[in-house]
Amino acid sequence: MKNGETLIRVRYSETDQMGTFYNSRALEWFEVGRTEALRQIGMAYTEMESRGAMLPLVEAHVEYLGRAVYDDQLRITAKLSRPKAARFRFDIEIEHAESHKAVASGYTIHAVTDERGKVIRPPKWLLEALEL
Amino acid sequence: MKNGETLIRVRYSETDQMGTFYNSRALEWFEVGRTEALRQIGMAYTEMESRGAMLPLVEAHVEYLGRAVYDDQLRITAKLSRPKAARFRFDIEIEHAESHKAVASGYTIHAVTDERGKVIRPPKWLLEALEL
Amino acid sequence: MKNGETLIRVRYSETDQMGTFYNSRALEWFEVGRTEALRQIGMAYTEMESRGAMLPLVEAHVEYLGRAVYDDQLRITAKLSRPKAARFRFDIEIEHAESHKAVASGYTIHAVTDERGKVIRPPKWLLEALEL
Amino acid sequence: MKNGETLIRVRYSETDQMGTFYNSRALEWFEVGRTEALRQIGMAYTEMESRGAMLPLVEAHVEYLGRAVYDDQLRITAKLSRPKAARFRFDIEIEHAESHKAVASGYTIHAVTDERGKVIRPPKWLLEALEL
Repeated sequence: MKNGETLIRVRYSETDQMGTFYNSRALEWFEVGRTEALRQIGMAYTEMESRGAMLPLVEAHVEYLGRAVYDDQLRITAKLSRPKAARFRFDIEIEHAESHKAVASGYTIHAVTDERGKVIRPPKWLLEALEL
Repeated sequence: MKNGETLIRVRYSETDQMGTFYNSRALEWFEVGRTEALRQIGMAYTEMESRGAMLPLVEAHVEYLGRAVYDDQLRITAKLSRPKAARFRFDIEIEHAESHKAVASGYTIHAVTDERGKVIRPPKWLLEALEL
Repeated sequence: MKNGETLIRVRYSETDQMGTFYNSRALEWFEVGRTEALRQIGMAYTEMESRGAMLPLVEAHVEYLGRAVYDDQLRITAKLSRPKAARFRFDIEIEHAESHKAVASGYTIHAVTDERGKVIRPPKWLLEALEL
Repeated sequence: MKNGETLIRVRYSETDQMGTFYNSRALEWFEVGRTEALRQIGMAYTEMESRGAMLPLVEAHVEYLGRAVYDDQLRITAKLSRPKAARFRFDIEIEHAESHKAVASGYTIHAVTDERGKVIRPPKWLLEALEL
């Protein structure tokens, strides 16, 4: 298994004057999805960082599929893959927790760097922990 | 001319613990770029909204090209086009104001809706004001 | 009982380049605490809003008491009171979920308004639901 | 002169479903005000940080005085003082740029620390540069 799920509620701070969530929140929710997926797959991102591997974004893509308003409960599903030797990718779906109506989907592509931001080959301990 | 430029400074609230800007800020800066571009092209977004036309996002794409840290001055250039009858598109570039080093680029695609969120044909007054 | 508790994890988007949470996040977490407290006390804020009563802030106060970093689990405790006829107040504490070390504390004071933002007397159904 | 002024426009990302700005934005705008005030008084915060002095918040207070909606132009005035030997304080006012109608006011109180977060006496070069 290389994916993970988590539930969130839309915060008031995440809404905008159109009454639904502001568009950039999707990327913040993608991050919540990645954080929980990494923990569920086998290595928390905090542990990765403390061992010297970071995953800065090189690309992000979002499709906005439906409304979500304050206090709605949403399910975020994030699936990890490794499209190239030095790139990780998360495919992410956000839907209403009960109705399964789609809210947003997309992906993020990440480099692997050391703590100074230098691009590195993904270390063996990391690939093993994440079964990549 | 269907584009516009604006300058911003990176806020402390926009940084994260990696020391550069947090990834979702790019979408917030894209919005600043769109706002100023629409005003420069010929119709402020506030006026569009008050006349009953809104531009919710249906898609967003970001490529992260370089670092930007607290207090850096950035130039945002947004270029408006109309790829389909009922879609507006902004292509957006963010670069360091002085060095012209690239920070992020991408695009956002928008539907045109009325104030209740119903998709509409772009009204004539809007297409004329924006020279589309 | 007129208080409620909830757990959150610090998001990467909530950190800043000092490595701890950015100061304004405290007010966003206060909101999460209020939302869950109102639900636990007896009336979700969404229901209040749909019945025509809103609680805009008139004052907020935060004391920053300790660090909290990415992925830390925090407990938010919010206690509701009614210091004046037309004011609600939440006293809020944020602490580390396991160690109970304090992160932030403060309060928010709210007017009661109708959906147009006009200040109103708190309706009877609201005071009863919240046992105020 | 120990104060400074700056102008901002309310971003769409800063609004919420009530149609005005979300409450935590006031603290982000306070930060913009402090940043520009320090630069105008005589030492940019980036330079302070690079010389090893940081100003983490220990307390923040906001009074919400009026509405501000998307694209409104606001003036932020921040005034620096030193209420105790080891504390800096900013008193901050936010008003509509043209009408001078009040939007929010408040203050933030700051410790002075070194880059590791250890509280220090404010260095002499800092007090001189800021005329404190």
